[in-house]
Amino acid sequence: MSAMRVTQADLVPLARGAAVLGGGGGGDPHIGRLLAERALAQHGEVDVVPVESVPADACVLPIAMMGAPTVMVEKIPSVDQIATALETLARYLGRTPTHVACMEAGGVNSTVPFVAAARLGLPLIDGDAMGRAFPELQMVLPTLGGIQATPMSIVDEKGNKGVLDTIDNHWAERLARSATIDMGCATIVSLYAMTGAQVRDNFVPGTLSLCLDLGRTIERARAEHHDPVRAVADRLGGRVLHTGKVLDVARRTATGFARGEAIVEGLGDQKGSRMVLHFQNEHLLAELDGQLLVTSPDLIVVLDTDTGEPVTTEALRYGHRVSVVSAPCDERWHSPAGIELVGPRYFGYEVDPVRFDGSTSAA
Amino acid sequence: MSAMRVTQADLVPLARGAAVLGGGGGGDPHIGRLLAERALAQHGEVDVVPVESVPADACVLPIAMMGAPTVMVEKIPSVDQIATALETLARYLGRTPTHVACMEAGGVNSTVPFVAAARLGLPLIDGDAMGRAFPELQMVLPTLGGIQATPMSIVDEKGNKGVLDTIDNHWAERLARSATIDMGCATIVSLYAMTGAQVRDNFVPGTLSLCLDLGRTIERARAEHHDPVRAVADRLGGRVLHTGKVLDVARRTATGFARGEAIVEGLGDQKGSRMVLHFQNEHLLAELDGQLLVTSPDLIVVLDTDTGEPVTTEALRYGHRVSVVSAPCDERWHSPAGIELVGPRYFGYEVDPVRFDGSTSAA
Repeated sequence: MSAMRVTQADLVPLARGAAVLGGGGGGDPHIGRLLAERALAQHGEVDVVPVESVPADACVLPIAMMGAPTVMVEKIPSVDQIATALETLARYLGRTPTHVACMEAGGVNSTVPFVAAARLGLPLIDGDAMGRAFPELQMVLPTLGGIQATPMSIVDEKGNKGVLDTIDNHWAERLARSATIDMGCATIVSLYAMTGAQVRDNFVPGTLSLCLDLGRTIERARAEHHDPVRAVADRLGGRVLHTGKVLDVARRTATGFARGEAIVEGLGDQKGSRMVLHFQNEHLLAELDGQLLVTSPDLIVVLDTDTGEPVTTEALRYGHRVSVVSAPCDERWHSPAGIELVGPRYFGYEVDPVRFDGSTSAA
Repeated sequence: MSAMRVTQADLVPLARGAAVLGGGGGGDPHIGRLLAERALAQHGEVDVVPVESVPADACVLPIAMMGAPTVMVEKIPSVDQIATALETLARYLGRTPTHVACMEAGGVNSTVPFVAAARLGLPLIDGDAMGRAFPELQMVLPTLGGIQATPMSIVDEKGNKGVLDTIDNHWAERLARSATIDMGCATIVSLYAMTGAQVRDNFVPGTLSLCLDLGRTIERARAEHHDPVRAVADRLGGRVLHTGKVLDVARRTATGFARGEAIVEGLGDQKGSRMVLHFQNEHLLAELDGQLLVTSPDLIVVLDTDTGEPVTTEALRYGHRVSVVSAPCDERWHSPAGIELVGPRYFGYEVDPVRFDGSTSAA
């Protein structure tokens, strides 16, 4: 992989691809894109550099939006708020950041770091800490690698800010989640400050390039009148699980998350079959006629059947014709420690993990 | 007033007097005293200096315990935790503290600052930010004087810590309260960093001396077989409202506070009369036979009728023979802004404030 310069025009396919990897979560990709477009227009284009090019002693500050995607749609962060999160952490650490990074590949959190990178004139790393999106802040590969989430900064749109310095990453999640709820269910956080060497060991490389490529794959399939859903499944090495029409969505914003279930009634070949998707920000379980097909940590993606456009959980509507794709996650998530952190039981589902192709997670 | 050196022996009367000014709140005075005794034994005695002697450019860091007094009894803070709170704020500010100070005159929060002062070898200021105890952190005279509560540090006994930097003092209370609840309902905080000049304008001077004197007044009355309740009322310029027996106490630990009501059935001259005390950490309203006698911001103090020992709200028990004293607070609390901050309506009681002597608050 080589360095690339991301322009405003690239942000459309990149945001679309990020929403695919977001697996239903990560917030509205359009809002993140609009923010990033404005930041690039004001502050210039952003250099996206490969993980392996980052110097071992680099000071890398990841940045993300935290909260319920349902709320993020109504509370758009400002460029200043995003920059403040990064600067507050840098000041607390007494370090000068050399690189900005993404915590997750998904929706808003693939584009918000462009805002920080453009505003501060820093390169952005082509990769992220999950390879997909997950709802809680300790759910990252750096946690598996023993990296501390804190010191972390947390900033709201009103001007309140804070720094947390906790004994472990679960405590960071707990305290930051409460603060996020108090602050109105959407904050900007900078956390998991790492050296370049730590990034190389603990990131999923190349996910921003993958987002861009996924977005372009969807555009190309449409332009060439190919099936965009099939094209996404192929690009991710996954499979199409189901095609149908949204029959019902139950959602509630609880404890700072968007939780719920969606029912997709089969159409065409799948008429008479019914898929239930369980989500907490992201889709976590897919059941077909009562049979468990796929669970977290593998990826469950909902796409518009005609356009291949990814559909976030908060955008699911009755009557929407959608297809459901499953795809493999980074293999480190299938380790015992990975399953403990993001497997179905952590989310309260008393089932064993099932991989995207129906096989079991066990090594 | 002149400087004094506080010894371990002084801490017994000082803690007793602090529990009087605590007005039922501020936590168990014995726990605070034991902590301070240990700190003085390890680190030496503490110089307590008059407010007017503090240099205008001094860097004063107040320190306090935050949370529900009912929980503080079971989660005793450590010397390290107390020192960490102060050091975390000092580091964030980039300042070297010259003085430690008390936020409130009441129970634990009059003695916890001795721990920090002894451990760090700094003088403690003879005064506090309230002249009594109140349950929320914005309820201090510095708020009336336009002083910001933040940056503030917050530290738990497990090793979690944080810094909050908020847009106003109500936001500081809100975010620190949530963090305190998450951290187990008791934390150590350092906040309202001030210059010496700001302390002179915004503190109630001489309250630690007053605590010591009140404690000794009670001891002397007992030794000389005078009525200790009357002695406390006289020393505070207040009056004895009621003498009786605790008939019932309803308490609940809700949203991080110890809330409740106590009923005191009259004895002797007051047989047949019934006093209801409403508290939220501190006693806030005293009613006799349905008539409102006194409200916050004036002081409502419950004392053991025989010994004059102050009784905290969490120590109130059925059958306890107690007397209720009311006394004036610092006059600044009776300003319109003061009443808005700590008057009965703020606490959800739809009544006008009544002063310790039954007069109204209006200027």
